[in-house]
Amino acid sequence: MPESSALPVSRIALIGAGLIGGSWALAIRAAYPQIQITVYDQEPQHRIEALQLGIAAYAFDTLEAAVHGTDLIILATPVGAFTSVLTQLAPVLGLNTVITDVGSTKQGVIQAAKTVLGDAFARFVPGHPISGAEKSGPLAAHADLFRGKRVVLTPVSETDQGASAKVKLLWEKTGAEVHILDAAKHDEIFAAVSHLPHLLSYALVEELAARPDAALIFSYAAGGFRDFTRIAASHPTMWRDISLANTEALLKELDAFSHKLAELRSALKSSDGAALLGLFQRAQKARTDWANGPTG
Amino acid sequence: MPESSALPVSRIALIGAGLIGGSWALAIRAAYPQIQITVYDQEPQHRIEALQLGIAAYAFDTLEAAVHGTDLIILATPVGAFTSVLTQLAPVLGLNTVITDVGSTKQGVIQAAKTVLGDAFARFVPGHPISGAEKSGPLAAHADLFRGKRVVLTPVSETDQGASAKVKLLWEKTGAEVHILDAAKHDEIFAAVSHLPHLLSYALVEELAARPDAALIFSYAAGGFRDFTRIAASHPTMWRDISLANTEALLKELDAFSHKLAELRSALKSSDGAALLGLFQRAQKARTDWANGPTG
Repeated sequence: MPESSALPVSRIALIGAGLIGGSWALAIRAAYPQIQITVYDQEPQHRIEALQLGIAAYAFDTLEAAVHGTDLIILATPVGAFTSVLTQLAPVLGLNTVITDVGSTKQGVIQAAKTVLGDAFARFVPGHPISGAEKSGPLAAHADLFRGKRVVLTPVSETDQGASAKVKLLWEKTGAEVHILDAAKHDEIFAAVSHLPHLLSYALVEELAARPDAALIFSYAAGGFRDFTRIAASHPTMWRDISLANTEALLKELDAFSHKLAELRSALKSSDGAALLGLFQRAQKARTDWANGPTG
Repeated sequence: MPESSALPVSRIALIGAGLIGGSWALAIRAAYPQIQITVYDQEPQHRIEALQLGIAAYAFDTLEAAVHGTDLIILATPVGAFTSVLTQLAPVLGLNTVITDVGSTKQGVIQAAKTVLGDAFARFVPGHPISGAEKSGPLAAHADLFRGKRVVLTPVSETDQGASAKVKLLWEKTGAEVHILDAAKHDEIFAAVSHLPHLLSYALVEELAARPDAALIFSYAAGGFRDFTRIAASHPTMWRDISLANTEALLKELDAFSHKLAELRSALKSSDGAALLGLFQRAQKARTDWANGPTG
């Protein structure tokens, strides 16, 4: 083993100093002050902020410089940039360097990594921390973001177990609970509980905002609207990339939801109070049970 | 003028001691400790709680007893009960008694009041406080619920101006800002910013809850899901009644939204990243502008 100390890795390159990557880096530095973290972000301002906030000790303006000599690379850019980043990384990768990501979709990322990385694909550990906020950028990062949250790893048959173990340990140090899921199942689940709600929220706001009396309409929006549309303030590029990376599962969810909406429409159209009440009651019970349960 | 003191009214009957009615009563008692408030609620437990919480000084187990000798009646039951309550009230109404309501839809309520109340319809002041929570019942009530919020009154040509002025004053004493809107416009606006989001949130939760792997799916739901579905924990009877009372506007909103979803689906299906990004960006800007504005 190259590391003789208790450190799981000695030098980490963070690619993308946003909310998620920045928060993970802060939590790792809190747990292991000896681990050196370098950062690359294409936004000069993010590199400066990452240094100022203590997310990384060194910032570089090229990907190659940032990853040089590191034994772990964290991909934390929007998912849409992964193929391009991995393509740049492949030729300069250390022989034992582990790569992990924090992308919200997993099958597409795995496919991209497999195509680009060759043998090094065995050291790619696909990951997804279940946490986030409508805020983005390094200024939103904080070391406690993942405390008590779940992190999903979706290793495949080729994935090196030692690589997975290192990534798992670094997540556990943030206070998160690490779960293993099949990548396809992961993508289905998150299309349902995360990606579709984002699309619906964006769709509602955009539909209303395009109307001539949008200002009047929005002036009467209140708490319910605020909650429902909070995720419509999310990072548009990130959500474009997630949508494009998880299209198949998302289309299935969209169709299931549209089917349910058609059922609701028909109950409304025929003033079927019993059908409406039944649907609302089942939803209320499920939502309340979830909120009162261990993950709600 | 019948009242020689500074009190706008001397005795109020609250019909329905839920979150909204209970909170208004608490705010009125705080502003005017001399006003007597009586309460009727069909749930015995709610009557007891209303007394214990100081929502009312007297509770009655019939509507007739509660309204006897009052000069203001506040209808704060679910909208679906209004016609039945108004029908019971009509024959026992004082000659100068003002009636107001807190229903989330206004055209249906106005129509019902007009049909049932006869001449007394002039003293019916339709109202809707823009505040609420997924909680319900007297225990959720508090005197500050309306502070800084909007209350909409939708008087019609027949509505007595003195009656409107009393109701307006009692709302202003809660710290709310009173706005006047046309009832049809009111119903359109709230179908868009409130009723439709509730339906969408209920629909998503119910659709997921009906699946065989619902428990697994919900176990990975996180912050975005929590916000989006908070309103799916709302009172099912109340929302059935609102849906049935505002069907026409709601169907229009549902169709506009479905149209937008179809547009999104087609962008997804053809992997049109530019269309997705444009839609998400416009939504994000509108949501952020609203949140940073005076009503967000």
